[in-house]
Amino acid sequence: MAKQITPRDEDYSRWYIDIVKKAGLADNSAVRGCMVIKPYGYAIWEKMRDQLDLMFKETGHVNAYFPLFIPKSFLSREAEHVEGFAKECAVVTHHRLMNDPHGSGVVVDPDAKLEEELIVRPTSETIIWHTYKDWIQSYRDLPLLINQWANVVRWEMRTRPFLRTTEFLWQEGHTAHTTSQEAEEEAERMHEVYARFCEDFIAMPVIKGAKTDNEKFAGAIETYTIEALMQDGKALQAGTSHFLGQNFAKAFDVKFLNKENKEEHVWATSWGVTTRLIGALVMTHSDDEGLVLPPKLAPIQVVIVPIPKPGDEIDEQAERIRKGLSAKGITVKYDRDDTKRPGFKFAEYEMKGVPVRLAIGKRDLANGVIEVARRDTKEKTSIPLDQILEHVPQLLEEIQENLLQRTRAYRDDHITEVDSWEEFQSVLSDKGGFLSAHWDGTVATEKKIKELTKATIRCIPLDVKQESGKCIYTGEPSTRRVLFAKAY
Amino acid sequence: MAKQITPRDEDYSRWYIDIVKKAGLADNSAVRGCMVIKPYGYAIWEKMRDQLDLMFKETGHVNAYFPLFIPKSFLSREAEHVEGFAKECAVVTHHRLMNDPHGSGVVVDPDAKLEEELIVRPTSETIIWHTYKDWIQSYRDLPLLINQWANVVRWEMRTRPFLRTTEFLWQEGHTAHTTSQEAEEEAERMHEVYARFCEDFIAMPVIKGAKTDNEKFAGAIETYTIEALMQDGKALQAGTSHFLGQNFAKAFDVKFLNKENKEEHVWATSWGVTTRLIGALVMTHSDDEGLVLPPKLAPIQVVIVPIPKPGDEIDEQAERIRKGLSAKGITVKYDRDDTKRPGFKFAEYEMKGVPVRLAIGKRDLANGVIEVARRDTKEKTSIPLDQILEHVPQLLEEIQENLLQRTRAYRDDHITEVDSWEEFQSVLSDKGGFLSAHWDGTVATEKKIKELTKATIRCIPLDVKQESGKCIYTGEPSTRRVLFAKAY
Repeated sequence: MAKQITPRDEDYSRWYIDIVKKAGLADNSAVRGCMVIKPYGYAIWEKMRDQLDLMFKETGHVNAYFPLFIPKSFLSREAEHVEGFAKECAVVTHHRLMNDPHGSGVVVDPDAKLEEELIVRPTSETIIWHTYKDWIQSYRDLPLLINQWANVVRWEMRTRPFLRTTEFLWQEGHTAHTTSQEAEEEAERMHEVYARFCEDFIAMPVIKGAKTDNEKFAGAIETYTIEALMQDGKALQAGTSHFLGQNFAKAFDVKFLNKENKEEHVWATSWGVTTRLIGALVMTHSDDEGLVLPPKLAPIQVVIVPIPKPGDEIDEQAERIRKGLSAKGITVKYDRDDTKRPGFKFAEYEMKGVPVRLAIGKRDLANGVIEVARRDTKEKTSIPLDQILEHVPQLLEEIQENLLQRTRAYRDDHITEVDSWEEFQSVLSDKGGFLSAHWDGTVATEKKIKELTKATIRCIPLDVKQESGKCIYTGEPSTRRVLFAKAY
Repeated sequence: MAKQITPRDEDYSRWYIDIVKKAGLADNSAVRGCMVIKPYGYAIWEKMRDQLDLMFKETGHVNAYFPLFIPKSFLSREAEHVEGFAKECAVVTHHRLMNDPHGSGVVVDPDAKLEEELIVRPTSETIIWHTYKDWIQSYRDLPLLINQWANVVRWEMRTRPFLRTTEFLWQEGHTAHTTSQEAEEEAERMHEVYARFCEDFIAMPVIKGAKTDNEKFAGAIETYTIEALMQDGKALQAGTSHFLGQNFAKAFDVKFLNKENKEEHVWATSWGVTTRLIGALVMTHSDDEGLVLPPKLAPIQVVIVPIPKPGDEIDEQAERIRKGLSAKGITVKYDRDDTKRPGFKFAEYEMKGVPVRLAIGKRDLANGVIEVARRDTKEKTSIPLDQILEHVPQLLEEIQENLLQRTRAYRDDHITEVDSWEEFQSVLSDKGGFLSAHWDGTVATEKKIKELTKATIRCIPLDVKQESGKCIYTGEPSTRRVLFAKAY
């Protein structure tokens, strides 16, 4: 099986698609740009969702559900918002089909035209702030800390499974506050939650920063982003958290009576991560043999393969180990299928990124040992049978940690300070990664650099230090470096 | 607060809407027929979903996700299916908006018309069976046991929160099998899972039966249903499980090579329950003071109210109890809010259906007791402080059981055997509930009875006994009774 994957250095994009397909994560669908998330891919999403949901609840949020459809006129209420989303909207215009009077099949019933078209939500700020108007009267109603797990649709021209699809799954938090400061703190808190999730669960270090005005969310005052680095040296925006100021409260006339009994507009945030995180996970850790999964997000954490096939003695040991590990909260699969050879199974579970493989053979059992293989380094060791229940949980932690360290080292090695335009171009094309460079702060320069090199400003890092310098492109004065990269 | 609810015997429909609104379960939205599920209502849905998901996984199913959109032509592939759904479809015809050249706002961009219109899924058999064609080649690929949690849209003319909405949340299982028998067994198994969930978790007894040909799912060979009885004597279809035969396999050309290396069409089932279950829950247990929740699905199972307000001694006891009960897996809220009086809080938690309320007062503490009130019977008792951690879990179980018994007694009392047309009409209008009656087996009679009385055949009960009789309406011979009722 492993042979079927295009090697990374031959064609990175092809490699990615091969893994998504062959590890059984997703499939194309009959609908342009929409994918089918297959059971194995969806199981990873369930793990991500459950963990994020826990983290949202720990920070005081509750879930709710708002309509899929948004009246067209709502989009226009916030000027930047409509500008940002109008060009990629799926529009519902009719509510009925009828038999085709001229043939077979069905056609749209012209009598069932909607008075006002409905947009399939590309994001829900508008419908949610329309609702919040009814929910918020006084400071006692605030803060409102609500999250929604949902599907959204953005009509993208070029799509790729998980990374950019017309329909995708996500969560969107929408909070309302009495003060600007409280809302800013909320946006920062969720930014931090996302960064922590990426590091602690995806084992993917991220750079926390703010977007430039040109790159921020349509309708936001400030957009915080987490940026990860993929193995081909391209950056990937993994999540964003927006401080929306009073823009949506003003657009939808949402006011509250403060403690002094005076009316004020409400302050807002929104924040989201999507199934794109699965794409990020795939590209961060996988290799030419297939998927590599961090143990904390692996649907199967340990697989037991009988060598050469199942039998009483092997079954007994396998069951003992499966039960012992399950009792410690570890997900174990014992693959008893005797129509497939061990070598085939090895390749299959490597392809699927199962972190730990135990091979139980009669000869090893006679010697009181068992073969333990880890997916991340492909190391194999013989572990005494009576130590296996202690060894495997430790090994899973070690793998999780190793993936993070490995990825962090790669990332750190790919942040390059550049101080001339020539250097900028050569590092970008030869090495890739993040380029830490001075920029004159204008949209014009930002766009020009993108036009010339395809690199965009990924973020102004939160921990940036003040430093006087000259813009990499125009030579104009600058007070801090920003991070450029080519990006997904 | 309680006064704000319309009493059941004054206006049952109004009573239902009042509870949904005032308990904070759902709100109307700006989109016709679509509701907003509020945090408290969504928390109930999360509990239902998590429990059902567990039961699906225990019966061998995995989750996946298929596209929201279905190409229009797919619907026409199965003749009965398109007949059943074409008249209530939301149709996407364009993928872009543009600035209105004649004014403000945005309009549909005529240049962005789709070549083929897309239907927002009313159910996913067509897109899923189109996908299964790629996934199924051999008997080794079967059975395929897949479920999806999703939103669907059916353009309903008359809507009511949870019971019938244009968009709703649901799960849809779609399975593929090598034999007719295996698929039938699967449809029956999930029918049974639904019935068990309703009884064990919603505390809502259901009658298991089969739908008549006239009432079955568009495209099914057999539809199994679970039918519950609401307090106004109307039936509510709470879930369905369909044996689809080879209809969809033939429509989408899905074949497999059997063990004898011969091609056969695949056998199918589908099954679903929706957010309608929340409406069923509300109408099954609630009273004129508000919502009554079965403990197993209550977002807050126990609330602790300080009398008359919080203070050191009370806080200490409340925290001790909260921790002790939490350690037993019980969800407890200690309401320290000192801006509201105890009486107000009592009414609020009654409205929200919290199963158990503990009132902690200084005088009671001095006597070493605590007041325990149960929501189902409104009984109050004084329980010694040192017994409270044992008492509350038992009480929650007792409440769960009591709700089931109470509802079952009501239901059993409302299944009436009727043997004449006069009796049929008078029982239907005076007592309501299920009417067990002979029927001649024709669609014509079924429709005529519906036209005359609004009663429909809810199901042919699975445990029906063979018995010769005469059709209640035509007097034609019949071999078994079926259950009629007016229904939601």
